[in-house]
Amino acid sequence: MGPHPAVAAIRLAVRRVLHDILTDHAPDHLLDRASDRERTAGRASGRDRAPDSVPGGPSRAPLVLVACSGGADSMALASALAFEAPKLGIRAGGVTVDHGLQPGSGLRADEVVLRLTELGLAPAESVVVSVGRDGGPEAAARDARYTALDAAAERHGAAAVLLGHTRDDQAETVLLGLARGSGTRSLSGMAAVSGGQGADRRYRRPFLHLDRQTARKACMVQSLPVWDDPHNADPAYTRSRLRHEGLPALEKALGKGVVEALARTAQLSRDDADALDAWAGRAEASVRDAAGLLECAKLYALPPAVRRRILRRAAIEAGAPAGSLFARHIEEIDRLITGWRGQGAINLPGKVVAQRQGGRLVIRQG
Amino acid sequence: MGPHPAVAAIRLAVRRVLHDILTDHAPDHLLDRASDRERTAGRASGRDRAPDSVPGGPSRAPLVLVACSGGADSMALASALAFEAPKLGIRAGGVTVDHGLQPGSGLRADEVVLRLTELGLAPAESVVVSVGRDGGPEAAARDARYTALDAAAERHGAAAVLLGHTRDDQAETVLLGLARGSGTRSLSGMAAVSGGQGADRRYRRPFLHLDRQTARKACMVQSLPVWDDPHNADPAYTRSRLRHEGLPALEKALGKGVVEALARTAQLSRDDADALDAWAGRAEASVRDAAGLLECAKLYALPPAVRRRILRRAAIEAGAPAGSLFARHIEEIDRLITGWRGQGAINLPGKVVAQRQGGRLVIRQG
Repeated sequence: MGPHPAVAAIRLAVRRVLHDILTDHAPDHLLDRASDRERTAGRASGRDRAPDSVPGGPSRAPLVLVACSGGADSMALASALAFEAPKLGIRAGGVTVDHGLQPGSGLRADEVVLRLTELGLAPAESVVVSVGRDGGPEAAARDARYTALDAAAERHGAAAVLLGHTRDDQAETVLLGLARGSGTRSLSGMAAVSGGQGADRRYRRPFLHLDRQTARKACMVQSLPVWDDPHNADPAYTRSRLRHEGLPALEKALGKGVVEALARTAQLSRDDADALDAWAGRAEASVRDAAGLLECAKLYALPPAVRRRILRRAAIEAGAPAGSLFARHIEEIDRLITGWRGQGAINLPGKVVAQRQGGRLVIRQG
Repeated sequence: MGPHPAVAAIRLAVRRVLHDILTDHAPDHLLDRASDRERTAGRASGRDRAPDSVPGGPSRAPLVLVACSGGADSMALASALAFEAPKLGIRAGGVTVDHGLQPGSGLRADEVVLRLTELGLAPAESVVVSVGRDGGPEAAARDARYTALDAAAERHGAAAVLLGHTRDDQAETVLLGLARGSGTRSLSGMAAVSGGQGADRRYRRPFLHLDRQTARKACMVQSLPVWDDPHNADPAYTRSRLRHEGLPALEKALGKGVVEALARTAQLSRDDADALDAWAGRAEASVRDAAGLLECAKLYALPPAVRRRILRRAAIEAGAPAGSLFARHIEEIDRLITGWRGQGAINLPGKVVAQRQGGRLVIRQG
């Protein structure tokens, strides 16, 4: 008898991502060997084989870390990684981040490390971070977390870090982006593969197409204890309100397919935003004069979607912080081109000033 | 003392759109005269001047119709049109559509006609439509309504038909599009200017940036009786559930700016979709071989967002009904290009078949 369908689903999701990681990172001969091993491994449990049994020694086997909070999603991910990694000649480790935001968070982190160790993950460690205040509590915690995960990945020379975000998290992220009203890029949610602050393509999200229920079920049938972070149910947090009130109400109004539709929207929006960014990148060179200034007549001739992206890039390049630059700022700069009536200089965040001078758009720190 | 701010807001919105209509439709000399008149009209009420007092006779004055259900949004629109149109030398008329879906709908329509006449609109008429079943009750009613409005516009030679959709309606439309999960175009809501089935740019939505509350207030302070369509509160209708449950819950979770953010998303998404459609239109010619077949290698080199649009166009061109062609269909065609493993032919709606043959993608009715 095979594993429970939920367990099969989480393992398949992880196996696919590990294959991608091998393709991206491993030398060719290792990749071939890993494929051979998979074909012949049969039912041997991953836990039976120590990481350093990989031919070529431990220094040759790539390491993949799982970021684990102890919640159902990341515990399911850790269990699937522990099962799949050894079959592909990959070392599996785990990191839990102690945000220090709740009493007893240190004990909690130790408990997660113990569980990761029991699953056979090595290294298994907790890292303590100090959460700042920038951008609100959720953003500050996220920044601290990724900084710590980046550092852990560097320290251990990890090829990748797996994150347990599910399709439900993705749907929530799309709605959070929608609430910003800043367009296609903000609707594109989380990427299946993304960079940390240091390395490109370090983070992988194997569960982005799996629902939360499957991860929870997989923990249950594997008798993995999971921890429900009280923050996830705290209505002080936007995401928690969305999860427990906003999304259910939306599903009631629009039907059960909403989460899937939101996740699909993320993928389509990401592709659209990528294509338009590429277009804007190419077009930008063609609208600058010999002195490098933006020519209003040439900007005017571009589609608004492309023109707005060029204006946004120019403002950021001049020093405006991307996070403080809203659609209405770009609209106002755009009117210097599409609705020119001799307006004065426009003040942008970061003390950047945009003005039209002799048919040129000048954007610089004032 | 000027009018109440709500009344000033609805009038300004209508005045802007009427100016646009004059620019689009009137011969140059009429446009000049209308501008002169506006500058010298002072406080003279529009209703004091009969439409045929326009120099050149009634046949020269463009006619603008308002589509009026008798609800607050369209009654506010009718009142603003009645006030602003004469000042610009425009004739103002109104049409109400009797969908025949509720008992007494005929009497209701007569009452709306009476109110439009009292506002000074001429012609003011009701048209009875018969609602089919295609695409569900809401879509069928909409189709019947626009067919009737198109016919009325043709019959009277109207330059434009004004629709009372507000920013709140726009937000609902974006959420309905989001629930389809079919990407940027489906998030672009309603256009400020759109075509009917016959004429391009016939329909104008002056209130797309105004909130519903302003329209309602404007009716109140002008003592205009309004009718609340029971359908708007009937939880059998998706839009009604969204309005009364889904959106309020989303606002509670995400904050009061949600409606505005959704409306902004519509505009940004529309511009993005337009730009990408234009790109796909240009790119399509470059990926066809001498025989007009799509070359897989050239399609592969395009950004996914552009490639998918070309595939969608090709499927529709081959006879697949646009409304039945979902993201998952396009995904499957796309895998013939990006994940080619000798798959067989793919069946699409409208008996269209897509298959890969000798490096070419063949999409045709089977």
